[in-house]
Amino acid sequence: MSHPLRAPNDAFGAFVPSAPVHATGAATGPLKGLGFAAKDLFDVAGLVTGCGNPDWAASHPPARAHAFAVQRLLDAGATLVGRTITDEISLGLLGRNQFHGTPINPRAPERLPGGSSSGSAAAVAGGLADLALGTDSGGSVRVPSSFCGLYGMRPTHGRISVAGLMTQSPSFDTVGVFARDAALLDTAYGLLLDDQAQAGKVETILVATDAFAIADAPVREALQPALAKLRALLPAEDITLSQEGLPRWAERQRRLQQAEFAVTFRDWIDAFNPRFSFEVGRGLALAALTAEMDLSAERAFRIAVRAEITDRLGGRALICLPTTPILPPLRGIPLSAMGEAGRRITELTGIAGLTGLPQISLPLGEAAGIPVGLSLIGWPGSDEVLLALAKTLAAA
Amino acid sequence: MSHPLRAPNDAFGAFVPSAPVHATGAATGPLKGLGFAAKDLFDVAGLVTGCGNPDWAASHPPARAHAFAVQRLLDAGATLVGRTITDEISLGLLGRNQFHGTPINPRAPERLPGGSSSGSAAAVAGGLADLALGTDSGGSVRVPSSFCGLYGMRPTHGRISVAGLMTQSPSFDTVGVFARDAALLDTAYGLLLDDQAQAGKVETILVATDAFAIADAPVREALQPALAKLRALLPAEDITLSQEGLPRWAERQRRLQQAEFAVTFRDWIDAFNPRFSFEVGRGLALAALTAEMDLSAERAFRIAVRAEITDRLGGRALICLPTTPILPPLRGIPLSAMGEAGRRITELTGIAGLTGLPQISLPLGEAAGIPVGLSLIGWPGSDEVLLALAKTLAAA
Repeated sequence: MSHPLRAPNDAFGAFVPSAPVHATGAATGPLKGLGFAAKDLFDVAGLVTGCGNPDWAASHPPARAHAFAVQRLLDAGATLVGRTITDEISLGLLGRNQFHGTPINPRAPERLPGGSSSGSAAAVAGGLADLALGTDSGGSVRVPSSFCGLYGMRPTHGRISVAGLMTQSPSFDTVGVFARDAALLDTAYGLLLDDQAQAGKVETILVATDAFAIADAPVREALQPALAKLRALLPAEDITLSQEGLPRWAERQRRLQQAEFAVTFRDWIDAFNPRFSFEVGRGLALAALTAEMDLSAERAFRIAVRAEITDRLGGRALICLPTTPILPPLRGIPLSAMGEAGRRITELTGIAGLTGLPQISLPLGEAAGIPVGLSLIGWPGSDEVLLALAKTLAAA
Repeated sequence: MSHPLRAPNDAFGAFVPSAPVHATGAATGPLKGLGFAAKDLFDVAGLVTGCGNPDWAASHPPARAHAFAVQRLLDAGATLVGRTITDEISLGLLGRNQFHGTPINPRAPERLPGGSSSGSAAAVAGGLADLALGTDSGGSVRVPSSFCGLYGMRPTHGRISVAGLMTQSPSFDTVGVFARDAALLDTAYGLLLDDQAQAGKVETILVATDAFAIADAPVREALQPALAKLRALLPAEDITLSQEGLPRWAERQRRLQQAEFAVTFRDWIDAFNPRFSFEVGRGLALAALTAEMDLSAERAFRIAVRAEITDRLGGRALICLPTTPILPPLRGIPLSAMGEAGRRITELTGIAGLTGLPQISLPLGEAAGIPVGLSLIGWPGSDEVLLALAKTLAAA
């Protein structure tokens, strides 16, 4: 299927075709002279936010103001250079978009970039921008960070304002940033995070053996050098994260998230009967069934597991796990394989989504040249701790 | 949402934008000098059959030969003047298409044309063609015939070759024709039907009171004059068609049809992840679940009910019922209302689909200017009998 031609300066198909944006940053500030891109979910004043779907764009008015995160980066001197492709209405973890095209993974061109913040990751990995804004509800910053070999973080839920952003699943939605180096990531998050940091001192790395066991062998092996580096820095302890199994946790996380986004999009869908790729339409149709289920057990579980893990971390430990259990899938695999890949990914990315805990993905692994991310999950408010450790590891 | 501009000679938006076709008919023949249109499901040699979906068009090669029905009409002297809009991959009864646009109902412009053979009905009702080819699996010729005030017939299943036609649900799929008058309809079907006619003599009209009871009051009232005309011509008898209720029959019909089309489209969907309106994507997603159910009871029921009705008709009776229980819905109603309208329509159109019996829709009613079709269902092979009676009624 053909897609519109892109602007010639978009070598990786990262930007939304026919939706150019440009906003010059402030004359001074910590990001002066840098360029950033923003996912097609962030409002840019005066323009329609497309959210990766032409029928969304056609049924929504132009934004009246910049999204909070866009404004912050502009104020800090960065210039907005493009609007990046997202999986349709942010539903997807692999980075495909049947309307706008699937961005190229600059680090593994024959493989998918990961999503839903696919274009943001491709733009940064391909050098089209220094920084890019994404969102992460179920893994949408962490997965493309891992697949494209970037630093990226899902912050503690609630610590970065989602003002001016398309809502997907309010109790899951977060704002994230991609960068090629840890120092710039730290600077950018410093501009975005609120003042609810929870200090602590990392004394132990809890290596989630069940999370590593779920991962494919090439992913596990690719992460051994980074794990050794981490162990050299801090004492490590092997743990089992989930007694009932990460697949079961992920199932609960998916149900809760489905029930939320089914409600988010229900009235719009009913009014406009929009077009979606089959994958996304099916996801929405099945989510509508989930939304009618009794999810009280899932809600209770969510509260309990968040408390349990927070307690376990106690302001002095971090959980270490692979960001995703698989390498980026090849482009053009069938839908059935996509579904299976997505399901497996949520077995690891669902943990932070379910608990609201911050998780940073570090581009410290490689399998035959293909990037593999290592993740650290911290206690609520430990975002700054994770960013600092990323810098230490990068320098080590 | 905007749709591409149409050719200026397409006043009712009946033809697929950017897919013009033209094939001149034979110099002589019973249809000499007439123009016909063909639904976007019929092959025209050398061109891609779009089936109402741009991703279908992009993933299929040009047709090597004309479809059987197209060839027959060309051979009879009719000229093919256009390719008409269909609901995506023929799934829909209301005539909406979010890619190609929804044709105008020339007889009730603020209302839907009915589908899935929407453009064929609009083209004939609007005078853009004398005849048009459609298909009817679950009601796709009968519904737009009723909504647009046309003659149209679902033939006995199997009596008109489906060669060169997109498959939807093989045990339901039929070819149909639309015309503004009964005589021309008869001529066209004479060219298409095989030699398996089953003669008989109509002695009684069985008025299906349960079918009339399901219909909205304006539909029931609009059909009283036509019913009186019919009663003046032939003895009539009130019957209850379904002891367990037509809604239950329709549910079984829908399940069987869903299970078939889920299989038909499964591999194509898996390979291409095509785009659909939410309505169609959801229908396909839920049909895939139905296809995994045990439908042996539905299959047994289908055989039994076909035998029961065939026996009841006995080569000497026809069933009379409203073609649809509702007036054509207004354009732009929400998806939820669309779904409810579709469900109600199948309570009447499902009967012939389930049993494979022929059903003709006659444009003999009107509710405040809005067309309302009256239907007659005959025994297997009674197509010619139905066509003859339509002519008699038109002359009466």
